[in-house]
Amino acid sequence: MSNRDKAIVLVSGGMDSLVTAAIANEKYELSLLHINYGQRTQNRELKAFNGIADHYNADNRLVVSIEYLAQIGGSSLTDRSIEVSAADINSKEIPTSYVPFRNANMLSIAVSWAEVIGASRIFIGAVEEDSSGYPDCRQIFYDAFNNVIEAGTKPMTSIIIETPIISLKKYEIVKRGIELKAPLELSWSCYKNEDIACGVCDSCALRLKGFQLAGIEDPIGYAVIRDYRNC
Amino acid sequence: MSNRDKAIVLVSGGMDSLVTAAIANEKYELSLLHINYGQRTQNRELKAFNGIADHYNADNRLVVSIEYLAQIGGSSLTDRSIEVSAADINSKEIPTSYVPFRNANMLSIAVSWAEVIGASRIFIGAVEEDSSGYPDCRQIFYDAFNNVIEAGTKPMTSIIIETPIISLKKYEIVKRGIELKAPLELSWSCYKNEDIACGVCDSCALRLKGFQLAGIEDPIGYAVIRDYRNC
Repeated sequence: MSNRDKAIVLVSGGMDSLVTAAIANEKYELSLLHINYGQRTQNRELKAFNGIADHYNADNRLVVSIEYLAQIGGSSLTDRSIEVSAADINSKEIPTSYVPFRNANMLSIAVSWAEVIGASRIFIGAVEEDSSGYPDCRQIFYDAFNNVIEAGTKPMTSIIIETPIISLKKYEIVKRGIELKAPLELSWSCYKNEDIACGVCDSCALRLKGFQLAGIEDPIGYAVIRDYRNC
Repeated sequence: MSNRDKAIVLVSGGMDSLVTAAIANEKYELSLLHINYGQRTQNRELKAFNGIADHYNADNRLVVSIEYLAQIGGSSLTDRSIEVSAADINSKEIPTSYVPFRNANMLSIAVSWAEVIGASRIFIGAVEEDSSGYPDCRQIFYDAFNNVIEAGTKPMTSIIIETPIISLKKYEIVKRGIELKAPLELSWSCYKNEDIACGVCDSCALRLKGFQLAGIEDPIGYAVIRDYRNC
């Protein structure tokens, strides 16, 4: 039995959540949470999650389906009638892939689980600066959510959300992953495809830019590789 | 078509959410949200929800299943191995029926839906003073959640949670329901049974006390009726 405190890590299967798990693993006993929300690539992401959980010997894993986000719609990730737009990573607009209030739904599940298993930390791989501009990826959102946890759980409960990579640029996340020997080859970031990453959606573009600026080759393959270093 | 602003009301099917819907109906076009979370009485509650939605001619209804709360466990409402305790409505302890962080999970769903359909208000029938002492039924929790909504939704989005009965005593909720001609006979509050209300669980006890102090007969039947007026 581990004597370390327990932390829940939200692991989508993407690079950011993998590196976040690698950071949490330095100090905590990991409980890994994966959430399907009816997104296009959910089977591939679940495969990535299980590969990552196996790598970290995380026996305590919870896979939850919240397909109501697809019922509710409003995002190209869950609504097949809205196209996943090609990346425009300098745009100030919130992209069509934004799933309304998604991260609050996910954090609420994590807090419910944390309260039951006695975890003191919830790690999430949100990225604020070098991101797609989703409102629920900003530190101000997580600070506000920590106040909700304080107000909405039992008095003896202490659960804090940690966002260790929120201020990092993507190339810094790649480097941090390499330093921590995170299995980057097991992760999956593409929003569009499940066989070979498309290379052009927001998520692929940001990931590729990160590897290119870090001067490291991405171990996963792509259908199309553009040079994003100056984007 | 209605010109009124849209409000989402969380309708469990209980008396509190019914009276909350009656209040929201005075001013808003109603969109009704019902959430199954694997609780013991979910079929009966869904029936109550549909009866209430029919009564208010609410065509826009969303029924969502979040059975992960039962997967997570930790409550007598969702975990069959924990007994639903008999009421001790003066106890300072949080009862076994507390579902960890349940209301945050429900509100997050409501906010996702509100952002997609353009609703400006979310009504929830939380009761603070005359309640079972759940931490997520306190106004401080809803104030904190409103800050999370502000931080975590698109800049042009304005959604506010309203808790119109949070400071009322149960007998005042009964009277308000009568005034607004809310169909109290359609509501269901019992945590334990689906055929005839048990009369002894926390929820039945609080409801019965409310009717008894209001001097009004509850239109639903009970297996056992105790005098709760002095509890």
